[in-house]
Amino acid sequence: MVTRRGFLTGAGVIAGGSALAACAPAAQTTGAADGTSTSIDQVNLAVQTVPFDGRHQAGIATPHQAGLNLVAFTIRPGVDRDGITRLMRLWTEDARRLCAGQTPLGSLEPELTVNPANLTITCGFGSRLFDIAGIADQRPDWLHPIPAFQRDQLDDKWGEADLVLQVCSDDPVTLSHATRHMIRAGVDYVGTRWFQSGFLNANGVLDKKATPRNLFGQKDGTVNPRTDEEIQQAAWIEEGPDWAIDGSVMVVRRIAMNLDTWEILDRTSREVSVGRTLDTGAPLTGTDEFDDPDYTATDSYGLPVIDPVSHMARSKPAEGHPEQVILRRPYNYDLEPDPTSEELSNAGLVFICFQKNPDLQFTPIQQRLDEADRLNQWITHIGSAVFFMPPGTDPDDPGKDEFWGAGLLQA
Amino acid sequence: MVTRRGFLTGAGVIAGGSALAACAPAAQTTGAADGTSTSIDQVNLAVQTVPFDGRHQAGIATPHQAGLNLVAFTIRPGVDRDGITRLMRLWTEDARRLCAGQTPLGSLEPELTVNPANLTITCGFGSRLFDIAGIADQRPDWLHPIPAFQRDQLDDKWGEADLVLQVCSDDPVTLSHATRHMIRAGVDYVGTRWFQSGFLNANGVLDKKATPRNLFGQKDGTVNPRTDEEIQQAAWIEEGPDWAIDGSVMVVRRIAMNLDTWEILDRTSREVSVGRTLDTGAPLTGTDEFDDPDYTATDSYGLPVIDPVSHMARSKPAEGHPEQVILRRPYNYDLEPDPTSEELSNAGLVFICFQKNPDLQFTPIQQRLDEADRLNQWITHIGSAVFFMPPGTDPDDPGKDEFWGAGLLQA
Repeated sequence: MVTRRGFLTGAGVIAGGSALAACAPAAQTTGAADGTSTSIDQVNLAVQTVPFDGRHQAGIATPHQAGLNLVAFTIRPGVDRDGITRLMRLWTEDARRLCAGQTPLGSLEPELTVNPANLTITCGFGSRLFDIAGIADQRPDWLHPIPAFQRDQLDDKWGEADLVLQVCSDDPVTLSHATRHMIRAGVDYVGTRWFQSGFLNANGVLDKKATPRNLFGQKDGTVNPRTDEEIQQAAWIEEGPDWAIDGSVMVVRRIAMNLDTWEILDRTSREVSVGRTLDTGAPLTGTDEFDDPDYTATDSYGLPVIDPVSHMARSKPAEGHPEQVILRRPYNYDLEPDPTSEELSNAGLVFICFQKNPDLQFTPIQQRLDEADRLNQWITHIGSAVFFMPPGTDPDDPGKDEFWGAGLLQA
Repeated sequence: MVTRRGFLTGAGVIAGGSALAACAPAAQTTGAADGTSTSIDQVNLAVQTVPFDGRHQAGIATPHQAGLNLVAFTIRPGVDRDGITRLMRLWTEDARRLCAGQTPLGSLEPELTVNPANLTITCGFGSRLFDIAGIADQRPDWLHPIPAFQRDQLDDKWGEADLVLQVCSDDPVTLSHATRHMIRAGVDYVGTRWFQSGFLNANGVLDKKATPRNLFGQKDGTVNPRTDEEIQQAAWIEEGPDWAIDGSVMVVRRIAMNLDTWEILDRTSREVSVGRTLDTGAPLTGTDEFDDPDYTATDSYGLPVIDPVSHMARSKPAEGHPEQVILRRPYNYDLEPDPTSEELSNAGLVFICFQKNPDLQFTPIQQRLDEADRLNQWITHIGSAVFFMPPGTDPDDPGKDEFWGAGLLQA
């Protein structure tokens, strides 16, 4: 096993040499090397950056990038609150540099960091971290496994973990290297528990906010909160201890999708299952993706146009519960077929969503879907984990955390 | 298991409806829907297409796309030459439509085909196909497994197969769906043997011909043939039966790369191993990536500047053998860590290369590398397969094949 100390020693050897010279931010070196003009740089995804520091962590309300690596970790035996604090200092510093297209201290791979391509690295804490850090009394009430549902077929392989890193970028090589860097940087403190990769449409700069499609062909995320106010309502923690304010809660569900049986359906049946058209994503009572659905509309037979058991109808907030909204940020997966399965594909969703409190948001919504949702015939929840996402960082602002979870770990 | 007939029946139900309306080529629908101007469309990867038909199959000399799915197939028992011919007609037709951003007959997912993003689908025939088709007497001498090398640790999991499809695109959702479509379209004839995914820098439209980097941080492919004449010399079959002319031969090696031990090296050692600088990719005797290396240059101690055991020095054509050049088209892979391994990452190369004759090109080069190559300390060949790539198609040109391998299968 390779330790960070090993890497740092290696770095020392050439600290005065070419590696440092190559550490300039991406926007400068790439622009110069290509000889591209400013106007072209503006549409060059490779050099685009998402600010790392701020009130909230990036990667939550950030428009989706094309690629995801979601990595969960187990804290190694013997690592205590001090160890976790050191890891968070180190990880935050490295993530900040990577997301700016700079090379972390001790990295000898500046060439793999110069194209951030909207890289974001976002950190979350699992329930057991509070025990290990000796701060179990601080653990929020909602930080526990999602209650078991009748239709769940959960595999512990994709279960709860001590820590999570969500790494997203529009460049696959950057995504791979940044993930690798974070894993090796933390190697003295944590080991990988699971690794979930995913992808979305590479809409690029032209259509960054378009709703991406899942592998059932559906636009996935139409009813997401979009304005700052809507996102504040759904996702950012507003009450509780100081260390939690402006944080969020990630629920990750791994959802297998059976493409073989889904694709036997005609298009009308597919649209009825969801309550939306496949082409525009409009509700079956409307014409535009963002039209409000009319659940009272009926067809010439007097039947509801939007089936009350459609996915859309079942997932909408319950009467009198406007808080039942989540900020969805799901990614598709498509892996080599499982040789033990009859299915032609091994595909689905790394379903990631953010909220203030899963007990009041994800869980009641999923409870309704588990009870009845036409889509259930083709999807199966096979993994589940919950993480507290600390608020954003800013080392230059004494009112903000210097590193991920500083307020909590130093409480 | 789902059959193509099932899909076709499903399609029939709605043939007069919305699916057909949604089948317009990508460049039209996407452009219109976005309201984007022509000048922006020119840099919109999503609607870009690579011509499917032509003298050669696309996806061989085509500039690299960001994503790869390489799928190998086993022909089902009972499928004979007629069956293979039917599969090739059907696959060629579907691939042609997918690559144009159109929806194949019988597909109900027009929304997943409208962003080809430079999609290419390229087909190859394995050795056993010649036996199954009853044309063993036509099998070229070079269509056999690559000879075993001393350092090989080949796993049959990534071994020889009857057929291969190389699917590449700059959009991950398009890549996934096109692969899925081809697998299900062929389900009556073939089952998936293996599935290798890979990725490269998403350089996009600005720098499509830049040499991409592998996960060791090296520019990978600098000495590739680049001009039409160089590619003709290296990759396109010029002699033999008519059905082989303008075809090529794919060698796929799966090469595991140990990032943990590689990254312990300082940068100088990394550069010596390859014979090139990491930043520009220039030979250690030059300053530009494309400078000719000077293997006779010595340093102040009289030692060669380019180590004779460096990867570059060992892979260059042997004296008097200018034919020892291959057209490389490798992709990186980075999967979840193997729980049985001490390594932090499970990464490497899906090393794809094209040539006229592997016995005269890949094999002698690899023989030298197997005997001595500084890089061998960090890389291991774990899979190997060889495929004949039929020439290009053109249904409107009576001098060309109407579908993949028509000349061979109808010989």
